[in-house]
Formats: sequence, structure tokens, C-alpha cells
Amino acid sequence: MVKRAEEMLVSAGIKLPAAVTPFGAYVPAVQTGSLLFLSGMLPTVGHEPKFLGRVGKELNADEGAKAAYAAALNVLAVAKQHLGSLDKVSRVVKLGVYIATVGDVDQVKIADAASELLREIFGEDKISVRLVFGVASLPLGVPVELEVIFELADQ
Amino acid sequence: MVKRAEEMLVSAGIKLPAAVTPFGAYVPAVQTGSLLFLSGMLPTVGHEPKFLGRVGKELNADEGAKAAYAAALNVLAVAKQHLGSLDKVSRVVKLGVYIATVGDVDQVKIADAASELLREIFGEDKISVRLVFGVASLPLGVPVELEVIFELADQ
Amino acid sequence: MVKRAEEMLVSAGIKLPAAVTPFGAYVPAVQTGSLLFLSGMLPTVGHEPKFLGRVGKELNADEGAKAAYAAALNVLAVAKQHLGSLDKVSRVVKLGVYIATVGDVDQVKIADAASELLREIFGEDKISVRLVFGVASLPLGVPVELEVIFELADQ
Repeated sequence: MVKRAEEMLVSAGIKLPAAVTPFGAYVPAVQTGSLLFLSGMLPTVGHEPKFLGRVGKELNADEGAKAAYAAALNVLAVAKQHLGSLDKVSRVVKLGVYIATVGDVDQVKIADAASELLREIFGEDKISVRLVFGVASLPLGVPVELEVIFELADQ
Repeated sequence: MVKRAEEMLVSAGIKLPAAVTPFGAYVPAVQTGSLLFLSGMLPTVGHEPKFLGRVGKELNADEGAKAAYAAALNVLAVAKQHLGSLDKVSRVVKLGVYIATVGDVDQVKIADAASELLREIFGEDKISVRLVFGVASLPLGVPVELEVIFELADQ
Repeated sequence: MVKRAEEMLVSAGIKLPAAVTPFGAYVPAVQTGSLLFLSGMLPTVGHEPKFLGRVGKELNADEGAKAAYAAALNVLAVAKQHLGSLDKVSRVVKLGVYIATVGDVDQVKIADAASELLREIFGEDKISVRLVFGVASLPLGVPVELEVIFELADQ
């Protein structure tokens, strides 16, 4: 039997951070119909960056992957805060992975760190499309930002 | 009582510019179900850039914020042209703020200039999720581009 | 009478490439409600880049436009693989064109190469909104990535 997302969090021993509050005049999540849009999620603890710099300059791809994983934890935390339970997610529709880069870096490896966490929690049959590119800079000077759209099950 | 968007435009003394026509083989707005997608909106008057350059080099963050505000006026103008009335908007779902940057700049300040105009017109309860990052370059050489998805009320 | 997409492919003499398989932990397409989201599509043949470099440095705008056209063929191939027939598309909702740039380049020309192919196949009344910007880098070192959301007809 397939475990549901909340069970997976427990069995994977993942403790979600507190949901990050907005840095400006926006909200963390908006539900419209059966879609839940999330604001861009950064590798921060609260408003404090956990990683600073660009991949290919101050940081390498391994550090970029760790930053993507940290941002994905914030994705889960914000979704759970909004929904009450991650079990309401019926699909991860879109994952955008935007990486502050200097030169060419292993973008697939960095993006996979986020994708694989979402796959672990929601299951192989709920994985998303993905959009990945290198940007010039990110808010707060962090190396990675994630954009997620979830599909929600009928309530 | 909460004022509606069209009343807010009047009471704020905002006169919308003419809706910008496309620069290429696309349309300004597409409605699908209850969602209205807008093309990327630039700080132009018609096809003429009002701001040129990158933030952190030719322009500072204050100028970037003014450019974001000008692009947000174009968002409102295109939405109004498509819908007839901004009162049909039930929610701003997503605001993307893409800033041409050199080095690290105050992206939150620039993005807030657009968010705050949308909040003023549509109201605190209708604010969006937000995605902000620095890009390498933008069409026409402008400093800011906005992406907006609106949710429309049942008709 | 308006030709449908599959007829247009034939009459335009376009032979679609094999649908590109994912480079990581994601899927090429996700349908949610009447929307079909596609993963970022690159100018590759399979996993092999057909174009390498940044526009404005290693490549010029004409080469960028050819890369955008090649990526748009992959968009069509992935959509057809997922849907069985492109005739199920009732609208191209969004086209994102993300170009790896050095300095300012003719982004409209590059984006139009993708837009015009989609317009040729789906028809003038089904063209999309568009979001175009220059990025710092792209996966595999390619010059262009496309993001597409389709609307599907009732089945």
C-alpha cells in the first residue's frame, strides 16, 4: 500500500521548519479552484538565508543541491500550513527551480535535490513537470528559488 | 464597506494608459476557465520604453521600483481592456517580478512597488503569491517585467 | 475551413522528433483539469543539444531563433505523445521563452520563431500570452528553453 504524504514525512524522519512569512506585500499561498500556487521559496530559516552566493562562484553544485533541498522543505512547510495536511495534495503540477549561476553548472543535479524530496513525500505517481534555469541574482543573495503549483484533491 | 477595483482607481486618481499591443506573435491576455493569464508586461508607454538599463548598473533600486509601478499600470490597462471592468477580478493569483540586475539589488523593494499598486486597487484580501528573481536581460532593454495571473469571479 | 493541428502538421511537411525523455526526477507533461503543463523544452535531439552557447556571445539572434524553433518541435512532440493527438488542444495558454543571453539581443525575434510555429499548427485564434526574458544559463548549456501551458478541449 502506498503511504500518504504525512506518513512519509514521519517515516522519513523529516521535521518541517516553521512556515516562512512573506518578505513583502504578498501571501505564501493562493488556492484557486483545485490549484494551490506557492510564492517563490528560498533556502532560508525564517527570514535568514541558510545559503548565500551563486553556484559556479561562491558555491559549488553540491551546495546548490543542499540549498534546493532546504527550499523544498520550506515548500512543504508552507503547503502544510495552508492546507492543514499534505495529504490534500493530489499532484505536484509544476516545480520551477531557478538557480543563481555564474557560468555553466550542473542544473539537473541541483534541481533533482528538490524534485527527489517531493517525490519521496508525495510518491512516484505524483511528480511534476519541471522548469529549470540559471538566473542573474535572487532575493537576499541566495542561490536557489523554487516555484511550486500543487493540485488538490476534491474536498 | 470595501471599495471595488474600479472605484479604487478613481479614488486613487489613477488614469490607466492605453493597453499595450503585442510586440510579436502573441496576445496580451488569455482566459481559460476562471483564470486570466497576461503576457509579460514591461514599463513602456505603448511600444516605447519608459526605463532603460539594468538595476545595479544604469539604474538604482528606486528607479527599478518606479519601472515596476509603470509595468503594473500596464497590467491593469491590459486586464481592463480584456475584461471591460477590473471588478471582474476576484483574486490576483500570481505576480512574477523579473528584474534585469547586475549584482545584488533590493529585489523586495522593487517587487513591492508592483504588489502595492495591485493591493491598493484590488484590496488586501486579494493579494497574490509572488515570484521574484534577477534576470540577465529583458526585451527592449527595460529593467523590469511583470507576469500576472488573475482569478475571475463567476459571471 | 480551418484545418486542425494534425492536418496542419502534415500539410506543413513537419515531421516531429521523438518525444524527449526527462533528464531528472520529473515528467514531461502533467494534466490538471483542462490544463496541460509541459516541462521546460530545450533545443535537443533526445538528450543531445542541437545548439550550444549564449545568444550575444557564441550565437547570434538567427541561431537563437533556430534553437527556439527546434525546442518548439519538442513541445509539439511531447504534447502529441501525451495526448495522442494535437487536435485535443483548444488553446495555447502560455508560452515562456527563456533565452541565455550576454548583453542585449533581439528577444522578440527569437521568441517569434517558437510562437509562429505554434500559430501555424494551432491557428491564429489559439495563440498564447507570452513571457520572454534573458537568463544567465540553461541546462546543458543550450541557448533557449520553452515553457508551455495548453488548454484541452472537453473530451
